Amino acid sequence: MTPAATPAYRRLSVEERRSQLLGAALSLFAHRAPEDVSLDDVAEAAGVSRPLVYRYFPGGKQQLYEAALRSAAEELRLCFDEAREGPLLPRLARALDRYLSFVDEHDTGFSALLQGGSVVETSRTTAIVDGVRRAAAEHIYSHLGVPDPGPRLRMTVRTWITAVEAASLIWLDEDKQPPVEELRDWLVEQFVAVLTVTAARDPQTAAVVGGLGEDDRD
Amino acid sequence: MTPAATPAYRRLSVEERRSQLLGAALSLFAHRAPEDVSLDDVAEAAGVSRPLVYRYFPGGKQQLYEAALRSAAEELRLCFDEAREGPLLPRLARALDRYLSFVDEHDTGFSALLQGGSVVETSRTTAIVDGVRRAAAEHIYSHLGVPDPGPRLRMTVRTWITAVEAASLIWLDEDKQPPVEELRDWLVEQFVAVLTVTAARDPQTAAVVGGLGEDDRD
Repeated sequence: MTPAATPAYRRLSVEERRSQLLGAALSLFAHRAPEDVSLDDVAEAAGVSRPLVYRYFPGGKQQLYEAALRSAAEELRLCFDEAREGPLLPRLARALDRYLSFVDEHDTGFSALLQGGSVVETSRTTAIVDGVRRAAAEHIYSHLGVPDPGPRLRMTVRTWITAVEAASLIWLDEDKQPPVEELRDWLVEQFVAVLTVTAARDPQTAAVVGGLGEDDRD
Repeated sequence: MTPAATPAYRRLSVEERRSQLLGAALSLFAHRAPEDVSLDDVAEAAGVSRPLVYRYFPGGKQQLYEAALRSAAEELRLCFDEAREGPLLPRLARALDRYLSFVDEHDTGFSALLQGGSVVETSRTTAIVDGVRRAAAEHIYSHLGVPDPGPRLRMTVRTWITAVEAASLIWLDEDKQPPVEELRDWLVEQFVAVLTVTAARDPQTAAVVGGLGEDDRD
């Protein structure tokens, strides 16, 4: 109970203040549809005045939403970071665990963002989401050891990524059932199954499927 | 070359005129992003005056777009109509053939609609698209002979429908490669593969997978 423990008296740097406002915004956007979050709510959650929020985000809610989305996209990209060590499927399972924790924590915001038709959705927000999808695909190609994936492998991986998103939305919609571990295992098994289907037509994918069980260190 | 062959002199009924304008709008929206289609373009394509277009669609482009989308959604639902006769997988293949023809014919509009971030996208347009997805899922449950699908079967079917959409978008993006017949077969094989994955955890899905090869007449 020393005075130093009272954060209200500490002056934040511009960067710290921006982070604080973004953090407050992200938690609000995580659990409410964007149309139900006002700048007043963000100011209140951060314990600052509304003009201060406007000073940092003069473009208003749209700018704040896009900044929060960029910050969430950055967090999602970190979910995909996985050491290139050990068998491939447990790596995928660990990345999915992190991704599904993110989905669990940002449930309402995640649904609102991906279900479309939101008032704050623009070609810029769509581009941010597409950037995350592309990053996920690049991580997968890299872990599979395929620097130059052909069209059939790319279609398989990108389609599976969309299936993961769809399954996450349905999972949220079904009150987070089945249990997250079952969902994660099912998604990994789906990954193997769809690659195996493609492998019958595509030698590059066949080679990838052949290597899935290997303990690949590079 | 009789005067009766000159359609310009025939007076269209309200319903005929509406269909004509919607038809002109649909062909424009099929091949251009909605932001690149003006009411002037629609009037020109239909050979009528701009005020006439406004008389039928007083809400302007947004109303016209939504009406065109509803008409496209109706067309898509017809793609799913398939007699409940013969083995299940060829039925699915025929429905996919019709669906992929639709995608092929409406390429730009289909991409613009599903890729999001369009200026004409609203919660209403999203609801129309979701209605088509739900109709597709209901058709599948009905063909599978499952009036009351459990959560695991539902998640599998709904996830596969999203995968079909994603694959269609990627196919358009890749200049319609691979050939449409290969894409269709690959989607059918994926359907079997993802159901088989779910069957290992879910008795209802296991029963469905067991019946896939049967020649079911009802």
